[in-house]
Amino acid sequence: MVDSAADMAADTVLYEKVALIGLGLEGGSMSHAMRRGGLAGHIVGTARSAQTRAIAAEINLVDEVTETAAEAVRDADLVVLAVPVGVMGAVAAEIAPHLKPGATVSDVGSVKRAVIETVGPHIPEGVHFVPAHPIAGTEHSGPRSGYAELFDNRWLLIVPPAGTDRAAVARLRALWEGMGSHVDEMEPDHHDLVLAVTSHAPHLIAYTMVGVADHLSRVTDSEVIKYSAAGFRDFTRIAASDPTMWRDVFLTNKDATLDVLGRFTEELFMLQRAIRMGDGDMLHEYFTKTRAIRRGIIEAGQDTAAPDFGRGVKP
Amino acid sequence: MVDSAADMAADTVLYEKVALIGLGLEGGSMSHAMRRGGLAGHIVGTARSAQTRAIAAEINLVDEVTETAAEAVRDADLVVLAVPVGVMGAVAAEIAPHLKPGATVSDVGSVKRAVIETVGPHIPEGVHFVPAHPIAGTEHSGPRSGYAELFDNRWLLIVPPAGTDRAAVARLRALWEGMGSHVDEMEPDHHDLVLAVTSHAPHLIAYTMVGVADHLSRVTDSEVIKYSAAGFRDFTRIAASDPTMWRDVFLTNKDATLDVLGRFTEELFMLQRAIRMGDGDMLHEYFTKTRAIRRGIIEAGQDTAAPDFGRGVKP
Repeated sequence: MVDSAADMAADTVLYEKVALIGLGLEGGSMSHAMRRGGLAGHIVGTARSAQTRAIAAEINLVDEVTETAAEAVRDADLVVLAVPVGVMGAVAAEIAPHLKPGATVSDVGSVKRAVIETVGPHIPEGVHFVPAHPIAGTEHSGPRSGYAELFDNRWLLIVPPAGTDRAAVARLRALWEGMGSHVDEMEPDHHDLVLAVTSHAPHLIAYTMVGVADHLSRVTDSEVIKYSAAGFRDFTRIAASDPTMWRDVFLTNKDATLDVLGRFTEELFMLQRAIRMGDGDMLHEYFTKTRAIRRGIIEAGQDTAAPDFGRGVKP
Repeated sequence: MVDSAADMAADTVLYEKVALIGLGLEGGSMSHAMRRGGLAGHIVGTARSAQTRAIAAEINLVDEVTETAAEAVRDADLVVLAVPVGVMGAVAAEIAPHLKPGATVSDVGSVKRAVIETVGPHIPEGVHFVPAHPIAGTEHSGPRSGYAELFDNRWLLIVPPAGTDRAAVARLRALWEGMGSHVDEMEPDHHDLVLAVTSHAPHLIAYTMVGVADHLSRVTDSEVIKYSAAGFRDFTRIAASDPTMWRDVFLTNKDATLDVLGRFTEELFMLQRAIRMGDGDMLHEYFTKTRAIRRGIIEAGQDTAAPDFGRGVKP
């Protein structure tokens, strides 16, 4: 039995058999990253879509592809739910009778309270449930979208319900550290609020702005796309993220997202009013403050200072 | 006399003497790009700040640094106003008596109606006024922030007032093509509306969201920065842009920006309501549509499909 992450060296098999339920960006990247680190003995994967399973088999994304989640989890030491948050409860109900005693069930959902409430009740006695959330993604999806470096230097938040077995938590932490992540633990409600600010509300805002531009592009004859400047281009990237995943995020983190959006609207009205009244000093002061926040993020090592994200430019 | 861009080969000196008023990201990048293409015989630059002038001289950003704009424009064949839109009128008044007959005055402002109205009246008879806007930038500013590739494959919009000399337009077009840009012409009001959609409103929204996060970060103990996820990180980059430049953009493109923000707020309320009512179908349909718009931008060659902008990842 392993008690802390420090006890586990890299290139150690941490789980003999890992089952990935879902083979999109996150599940696929986990497979690449576990292989890179030699962290799993055998990786089984499954997906609801026959096409996804066929592509996964064709590109050798995992060691074994099964048709059903029930088959995939048989004898697995670690089961990871890498499906949209809205279907995790149904998947948990399906796999529950087939889980091995002593196994760990985890997930990669962007919302944690809803996952704990819908998955938790299905987990049998003797199986460990350790919810987790890798703060890493791209706008791409599907079995070809994953890559081994996705989690490098990104945060992984473990959100264990009260009374979770500490050894199971430590082992999962070691796995994620082996895949390149920094790992922290957090309370579920706090997680959902922090993510509403840093990810969920910004995504909804980006979706909205791109939708507005789409209405106007009929007026402006597709010039909106042709001349898309940096601000809008970045919004479109965010707004290209997986529709099913994001629908589920908003529906399952409703309260925190609506709270943050309410604050956002108030603040936007204040700035709109400053524009209307010609209050340049107020705008300048506000923009100077937000620039300082950016510096904080670069100093925290969570982004690059390369101009334009290094979009093929030489600084 | 040159009649069309096609008549002008690359590595041809298009202007014997170019004066850059302002040595920040845009002015500095123009100097690098003109040198790369061998497009200017002699490049003079000036800036209001003594520190900027000293740095420009130290790093050899231009061939000659002058203390005043009046000195810089003497005998110049092309004068480019690369200062915030809010001060362009004052700079035009200052340089007007010193402009050479037959010279061209242009600019790089993000707003065009206001530039035409404030700069235009100062331009003497016999001098050509050809406003322009390179749709290219980064969040960095200052004399060290420019680089020769900034304009490569980006759009440059020329917004000539009625009756502008066509040969002067053609020569400026050739300069920008030589610096790597694609060039189009546009009407000023149309330009200001398109840019309000693709750039000005998105910037204000990003500034707002980062401001909201800053309020909440006091609640969440700076975790907002520590765990900043992709959505928010991209917003902070946009919200790190030059405060003076952006204050002036909003104050001088007030009507179009407020119009677009009004549409944005309506649309956001509709999506917020869908979240509150649990209307997953509506959200999914909306997000699917915005994903398609992203594809249009990538097909238009205005962004890369590399995940996460290629932020140090291997796709």
